[in-house]
Amino acid sequence: MHSELWIEEKFEDFYGMRFKVEKVLFSGKSPFQTVDVVETKGHGRMLLNDGLIMVTERDEFVYHDMISHVPLFVHPDPKRVLIIGGGDGGTAREVLRHSSVESVVMVEIDKMVVDACVEFIPQTSKDLNHAKLELIIGDGLEYMRGDHKPFDVIIVDSTDPIGPAQPLFGPEFYQDINRLLTANGIVVSQGESPFMHPEVQESMLKLLGEIFPVVRSYNFSNLTYPGGLWSFSFCSKSLHPLQDFKAERVKTSGLEFDYYNEEVHRASFALPSFMQKRLAPYFKNGVRS
Amino acid sequence: MHSELWIEEKFEDFYGMRFKVEKVLFSGKSPFQTVDVVETKGHGRMLLNDGLIMVTERDEFVYHDMISHVPLFVHPDPKRVLIIGGGDGGTAREVLRHSSVESVVMVEIDKMVVDACVEFIPQTSKDLNHAKLELIIGDGLEYMRGDHKPFDVIIVDSTDPIGPAQPLFGPEFYQDINRLLTANGIVVSQGESPFMHPEVQESMLKLLGEIFPVVRSYNFSNLTYPGGLWSFSFCSKSLHPLQDFKAERVKTSGLEFDYYNEEVHRASFALPSFMQKRLAPYFKNGVRS
Repeated sequence: MHSELWIEEKFEDFYGMRFKVEKVLFSGKSPFQTVDVVETKGHGRMLLNDGLIMVTERDEFVYHDMISHVPLFVHPDPKRVLIIGGGDGGTAREVLRHSSVESVVMVEIDKMVVDACVEFIPQTSKDLNHAKLELIIGDGLEYMRGDHKPFDVIIVDSTDPIGPAQPLFGPEFYQDINRLLTANGIVVSQGESPFMHPEVQESMLKLLGEIFPVVRSYNFSNLTYPGGLWSFSFCSKSLHPLQDFKAERVKTSGLEFDYYNEEVHRASFALPSFMQKRLAPYFKNGVRS
Repeated sequence: MHSELWIEEKFEDFYGMRFKVEKVLFSGKSPFQTVDVVETKGHGRMLLNDGLIMVTERDEFVYHDMISHVPLFVHPDPKRVLIIGGGDGGTAREVLRHSSVESVVMVEIDKMVVDACVEFIPQTSKDLNHAKLELIIGDGLEYMRGDHKPFDVIIVDSTDPIGPAQPLFGPEFYQDINRLLTANGIVVSQGESPFMHPEVQESMLKLLGEIFPVVRSYNFSNLTYPGGLWSFSFCSKSLHPLQDFKAERVKTSGLEFDYYNEEVHRASFALPSFMQKRLAPYFKNGVRS
């Protein structure tokens, strides 16, 4: 290339984020979506599905820390973990750092995402061949309809509710999750942007509240999602993300993280007033003894 | 215009944020900087100095809540407040909501910023003619060299350390601030981006630590600064932003905010590990009894 190469993620028709690209490493079209991996100038390697930024090497630690360590440090002894989606491998990588975890099942619909990340983004995909990990290329929705040994933690590491991930935002999927969770099981899901998708957040929490006794949202800040502030939803059959969080478990784990720590854990549930006002009516704190 | 109009803020040579513009409302060049006000499609009216986004109507509440209410709720009885910069008026607007505040002095170097905001962004500038406010068009650095009745809270609401705000990131300015603070005075300053300007943050905190007994950083997340996550520095002669924060004062104030609340206050000081690791060596917690 003799011209400058830039990639842009547009949000609706009024906002865009542009990143300078040094090299296009992979560009394919799977049965589900387009898959691109580029080497950017400022953010390392970047994965895009259908033109939306999924991960960059520069800030993937934020997302993967927060989707993994929050539920895994609330659950007192997570042994079996299920990841729906997460094809880049970053969530699996973080989950596998927890010594209590005995087995991880990961169900990713798009083999092309996995293959592209294995070849071009080893930073996130490096543990996809881990002995404790069973990687299933298949439909997460289908998988959840089946009969499996229950999981302590289920992580829904999905794209947005357009394209292949759309059914992952529906009630049947979460009813199946509820069925496949242990008695004190936790499910955490990608929860969209408080600034950009308030209606999606509200309808998701409403749906989750009809299934789970504990429903909360928590936030994190990354570089490359529109608006910076982003959220996850935390649901469980009994465990509360703050009241049942034992900070000393973070210390005794011996693990260190670039984003997550015990203060960030608590702080991530402290929501700005505009978000609190909209979402708190849907929160459920379970039955406390 | 028959073509699409977009405005872009570039970060170095590898990242850009683009906003669709409906109309250019004002475009001028002052002795200090360029000043533009545009009507955007998705973010309301937007002020740019030297091409950098200062405020948008959509998310200015985040910045102005966090620069104002954090120090004003830590100080037990803030009466005299000084704002250096803040020409859009949003910080003054929030400060003036506190009933304890008897007088606010605001020193803004650039009359063109004030005039443009008074004319085109009433949302932020609406209280610039408030009876308790003395608006001085002048050099903040010069003002601080003078002799004034001490202030309980000083807010440095400046642009970045390039252009007219550069001296506001130097030691003389903060020595003068220290001199003009009451015995339990607090100073809060725009603290740049943890992702984008880690070196600026480190050198600022180092400098502040040589002057103030209490030095901390706190974060907020807005839509339109590169990277989303942004920070303020909090320094004081004695008051600690967490240990001396009485949450009940927020309730008894009767004030409601779109971003700030007592949980957000505490949470904003819980820093991600990568930031904690870099900045905590410069933090000072004062002498606790």
